[in-house]
Amino acid sequence: MNRLDKLVGLMDDYMGALITPGTNFYYLTGLNPSATGERLFLLALNREGESVIIAPKLYENEVKENWEGRAIFWGDDENPYLILKGVLDELNLRRGKILVEDTMPAMMLVKIENILMDYELGLLSALTSKLRIKKDRGELKLMEKAAQAVDEVFYELIERDLEGMSEKQVAALIEYLINERADGISFEPIVAAGENGANPHHTPSDRKLKKGDLVILDYGAKYKGYCSDITRTIAIGKPSELALEVYDVIKEAQERAVQAVREGITAKEIDAVARGEITKKGYGKYFIHRTGHGLGLDVHEEPYIAQHSETILEEGMTFTIEPGIYIPGKVGVRIEDDVAIINGKGKRLTKAGKELIVL
Amino acid sequence: MNRLDKLVGLMDDYMGALITPGTNFYYLTGLNPSATGERLFLLALNREGESVIIAPKLYENEVKENWEGRAIFWGDDENPYLILKGVLDELNLRRGKILVEDTMPAMMLVKIENILMDYELGLLSALTSKLRIKKDRGELKLMEKAAQAVDEVFYELIERDLEGMSEKQVAALIEYLINERADGISFEPIVAAGENGANPHHTPSDRKLKKGDLVILDYGAKYKGYCSDITRTIAIGKPSELALEVYDVIKEAQERAVQAVREGITAKEIDAVARGEITKKGYGKYFIHRTGHGLGLDVHEEPYIAQHSETILEEGMTFTIEPGIYIPGKVGVRIEDDVAIINGKGKRLTKAGKELIVL
Repeated sequence: MNRLDKLVGLMDDYMGALITPGTNFYYLTGLNPSATGERLFLLALNREGESVIIAPKLYENEVKENWEGRAIFWGDDENPYLILKGVLDELNLRRGKILVEDTMPAMMLVKIENILMDYELGLLSALTSKLRIKKDRGELKLMEKAAQAVDEVFYELIERDLEGMSEKQVAALIEYLINERADGISFEPIVAAGENGANPHHTPSDRKLKKGDLVILDYGAKYKGYCSDITRTIAIGKPSELALEVYDVIKEAQERAVQAVREGITAKEIDAVARGEITKKGYGKYFIHRTGHGLGLDVHEEPYIAQHSETILEEGMTFTIEPGIYIPGKVGVRIEDDVAIINGKGKRLTKAGKELIVL
Repeated sequence: MNRLDKLVGLMDDYMGALITPGTNFYYLTGLNPSATGERLFLLALNREGESVIIAPKLYENEVKENWEGRAIFWGDDENPYLILKGVLDELNLRRGKILVEDTMPAMMLVKIENILMDYELGLLSALTSKLRIKKDRGELKLMEKAAQAVDEVFYELIERDLEGMSEKQVAALIEYLINERADGISFEPIVAAGENGANPHHTPSDRKLKKGDLVILDYGAKYKGYCSDITRTIAIGKPSELALEVYDVIKEAQERAVQAVREGITAKEIDAVARGEITKKGYGKYFIHRTGHGLGLDVHEEPYIAQHSETILEEGMTFTIEPGIYIPGKVGVRIEDDVAIINGKGKRLTKAGKELIVL
């Protein structure tokens, strides 16, 4: 059964779905157009499994090469919402409960709502996440490739003389090394040196890497749409006692959480392993985020490895394990691996070493 | 008058606006958080000019450093939409005509609509584009910096031995060179060799650049949020007669359109200059897109330089001029500059040469 049919099978009382390009669109159709949201481009799918793509003429060749179903292409002199109205009438999608792609921008949704009558909106991800949360063998192969790329980048990085480079320059180097090995980055690399490491979402700055710094390197690659996401923390010259202690706490907590992964355990139990270890060592209040997140076509997706998540981990699920300690003004440490459940057991997809590297 | 006050001044019968991070948010607040849409993060602003930011706790430091107004931060154990409901009640923003940020994802908008009662939605860009379409001197300085970076990248590129490299590798090289000189790319570089050049939206592939190819290089940089966007077409070895002819047609059409830019002319007149020249030479049916688009914090914004645009060009407006000819299966040529209207006249921001470079 193809993925569109599987989606229809989950629709219950929904009349159908309006799906704009993005990872769900790619998962369902195999098409991955670089559409921006400026121009109407969507797949309308009803509960009978009938579907139509409406796309700008610019994308005609790209769609036709990869999509055997019905498609309508509109030119710059047409009003695509009039075309959409006709299609929705035909597919019986102007009334009732309608699913919309979660990332559909308001500039489309507001105009689409003007076409709908007596409707109620639901989010497509409620259904697609049920399909996407468990990866099949083909998907896992692609995720392994994406993970292998970031491992290789790490080993390249630690051969370079990073001291004196700015966080921005290191981030640019990481992007370049990823682009050489994969289809692109899965998110903007985070490079956070010294005190900047205490901000888990730090944006790379002109601050130079210098002796005594711990440096958080958090980056990911995409391979045929599938994401990897790795974090390693390295040292430039001899780190402080505090930095060394924090590093060891995180390394231990992260490794224990990875070891705990297996089919049937809940996400919150995994979170508790990492959080418990960090709390025991007295750093609990400095671990200010979840232990991890699912990974696949999106770099953040189900299942979330969080304190209150009752999700039971199952075969094929893939997610990160990334505890961190952030001491404001002083230091930050985070270590992150990608893990998949294969044959009932946790398998690390990222394999780069975790002994502290001192450059 | 600050930009938020200017926006309030344009609100007419709107009750206020709900603004999620993005370029409008940055323009209005100076804040540019790398928020993903997964977590509620917005600025609520009413017609009295009262405003509140609601943001995840993770962004607390970043917001406080750059925002002196009121802000509420929510933790992972809270329901941010309950907090939003209270704020909207207080600001009198649950009823009437409400503006929403155009790029707000459906995953937020659908939940926000559940909080609103007896409302009508409008798109924020209708107002912000009136503010943003004309750049002030400070903004133009930043756009010049962004343009300078892509010029430099072009001169670096033509020093390299690109023959034998794949489109993807050249794209990675371009990204790296941009990252060295600016804050990042403004969009994924397009590198389209030979027959691939006939697709204006080609995604860089593993196809290698080889003798006889024309290669379209279309890329842009961001500098403090402001975008540049340049296209040059170069040759690897001696090009065909057809390729040379098409190149000359585009070079002439592009240059004429750039020369025609001045205060008071309409966008469609500029389009007609380029389109007329190409049509006169017999290639009209191969010029399948607009002549250009506005440029600023977004890489596509007002004013669009299109066949039917009555927009009158004014001081401070900045846009691209980028005619192209695309002959399916054979060849594509596009040349693009960024132009600003300064002291009533068109000024090129990108200055890289346009004589055909043969590597």
